[in-house]
Amino acid sequence: MTTMNRILCLATRPDKSLSPEHFTILEEKIGPLGPDDVLVRNTWLSIDPSVRLRLHAVTPNGYLPPFEVGEPLVGLALGVVVESRSSRFSPGDTVTHMYGYRDCAVVPAGGGGLGGAGSLTKIETDGFAPQWFLGPLGSSGLTAYVGLVEIIGLQPADVLWVSAAAGAVGSIAAQLAVLRGSTVIASAGNQDKVDYLRDGLGVHSAFDYHSGDVTTLVADAAPDGIDAYFDNVGGDHFDAALANLRTGGRIAMCGAISGYDVAAPGPGPSNTFQITAKSLSIRGFRAGSFAHLYDAMRFEVGTHLSDGSMVHRESVYEELEQAPTALVDLLNGRTTGKTLCRLA
Amino acid sequence: MTTMNRILCLATRPDKSLSPEHFTILEEKIGPLGPDDVLVRNTWLSIDPSVRLRLHAVTPNGYLPPFEVGEPLVGLALGVVVESRSSRFSPGDTVTHMYGYRDCAVVPAGGGGLGGAGSLTKIETDGFAPQWFLGPLGSSGLTAYVGLVEIIGLQPADVLWVSAAAGAVGSIAAQLAVLRGSTVIASAGNQDKVDYLRDGLGVHSAFDYHSGDVTTLVADAAPDGIDAYFDNVGGDHFDAALANLRTGGRIAMCGAISGYDVAAPGPGPSNTFQITAKSLSIRGFRAGSFAHLYDAMRFEVGTHLSDGSMVHRESVYEELEQAPTALVDLLNGRTTGKTLCRLA
Repeated sequence: MTTMNRILCLATRPDKSLSPEHFTILEEKIGPLGPDDVLVRNTWLSIDPSVRLRLHAVTPNGYLPPFEVGEPLVGLALGVVVESRSSRFSPGDTVTHMYGYRDCAVVPAGGGGLGGAGSLTKIETDGFAPQWFLGPLGSSGLTAYVGLVEIIGLQPADVLWVSAAAGAVGSIAAQLAVLRGSTVIASAGNQDKVDYLRDGLGVHSAFDYHSGDVTTLVADAAPDGIDAYFDNVGGDHFDAALANLRTGGRIAMCGAISGYDVAAPGPGPSNTFQITAKSLSIRGFRAGSFAHLYDAMRFEVGTHLSDGSMVHRESVYEELEQAPTALVDLLNGRTTGKTLCRLA
Repeated sequence: MTTMNRILCLATRPDKSLSPEHFTILEEKIGPLGPDDVLVRNTWLSIDPSVRLRLHAVTPNGYLPPFEVGEPLVGLALGVVVESRSSRFSPGDTVTHMYGYRDCAVVPAGGGGLGGAGSLTKIETDGFAPQWFLGPLGSSGLTAYVGLVEIIGLQPADVLWVSAAAGAVGSIAAQLAVLRGSTVIASAGNQDKVDYLRDGLGVHSAFDYHSGDVTTLVADAAPDGIDAYFDNVGGDHFDAALANLRTGGRIAMCGAISGYDVAAPGPGPSNTFQITAKSLSIRGFRAGSFAHLYDAMRFEVGTHLSDGSMVHRESVYEELEQAPTALVDLLNGRTTGKTLCRLA
């Protein structure tokens, strides 16, 4: 077996926009496994926008701490067990865990400091592509499902707006909502993605948020207002939702990519009185707190993926060297569907 | 009976801060009652900050329409029936209704265009001062109760922050929370009010929001964070709540007085990512949608007021001429408790 490992680290902290030069690859020897440790050869890395937050010198109150310069990054990954000191894992098992951004990972089988949703988990792929368990059948799918079902409480009569709808979470949320009978308005950042939303995902209406004032674009797509908004973007999209929601409207917030790759967040919506005037509900959430809904999600999304009623795209980058480019492309809207890095 | 009536109207639309000169009193003859009409002599007018919103040329999306110049104002009022064409009301009945800001009111017994919570309602005062049915036993009390019980879901272990806590709604919310066993931090706009919060209402900690940065003041009062925030203010108070709430925190929003008496709302909080990072819930509401909770509120608040465990203050202005001053004083933080105008 390989005794040397390569791990992606922060080389210099970005002042403004992130670029691949902010990263470096550290080589280190893989030490002997401790009791209950599992050695995993990573095959797929999940590239998630939220990692960008931890590259700032200070992270938002309530969020995970910053990565220090020279410190290995972590993130969701999928791999194959090479060696195991745990009775629960055997060589050859496919697993997910939180020690991504490296070729190999020594993972404490009990979860260690990155427990909870990031604990070492054995995956039964059941004929699905293994990397889908980082995407539609994993964290992205659960985020979409929880946001719609648990946070928004989506009903068939609802008019729902999904932002970043060509992305990993948004594309699942938009399709699940269509399949559950709701009217779905979807937005993304270029015409190719808009075409994909309309022709691939089957949403009722789609727009490029660069094509005008977002509040007006939503109003044009839903002249009678919207009942719910699935927010992946924040910023002017949040404003637009407050303006366009009908009385009793709901917002699910699972991220705010518009604010991640900037030095400081811009001013927030000036129309927060809409929350009172229209009795709106706004809830932030993280899928990790809703692990009990995983099986229900897996059944519903898995069924749709199997019978072809739901489509899924991936933007795949090759090898650890390309992981920084994958992240930068994701933050700049240049990827579609789930963004992944494949390790040979 | 009087055949002439006096009604408060908007004389000129305020550009910036409201002053009494923006109002005028119109005199008009009381016409014959229509079928099902009730003539009420108003004895108490409820002075509510939200009426200020309707003095702008444009009201927030989802809110009631603006008052036009020369058009009679409306608002919550209490009075005595003088003459009735309705079988449900008799001369001498004490009633509440929405045709305030005038000496007498012709009120359709069926509710008319101002139905719902503003419908003509007979009050059994049961020994309480009648004007309390505009305050702690009426709309203000229901707003406080709904916010705590239904929106926030207050638990005894919660640390709750109540803003504008010396006001009509805030003072009831703060006391109800103390009496239900929660730890209550309360804020108001001057030292007299802060003394009242601490010594009169019995909150655990109180501060004057002018005495520093509100986020810091809340952090000083609750170093381990807060679980819930009852918002009557908006603006920098909303920011401070987002910063200080713990994971899973809840906000109830029933108004945003800080934004009412200004030409245009200021920028909102730049820290809305906190909603996602800490899985916060934010809900706006209007008490009128929770009329089914009135009896429960009436029992709980009434019991506390009867046995002296809850106190109540009023800022009383005399006669219709003083109603504009009452409203201006309320908007400028110069009143305590429920602001009322008494008509002889």
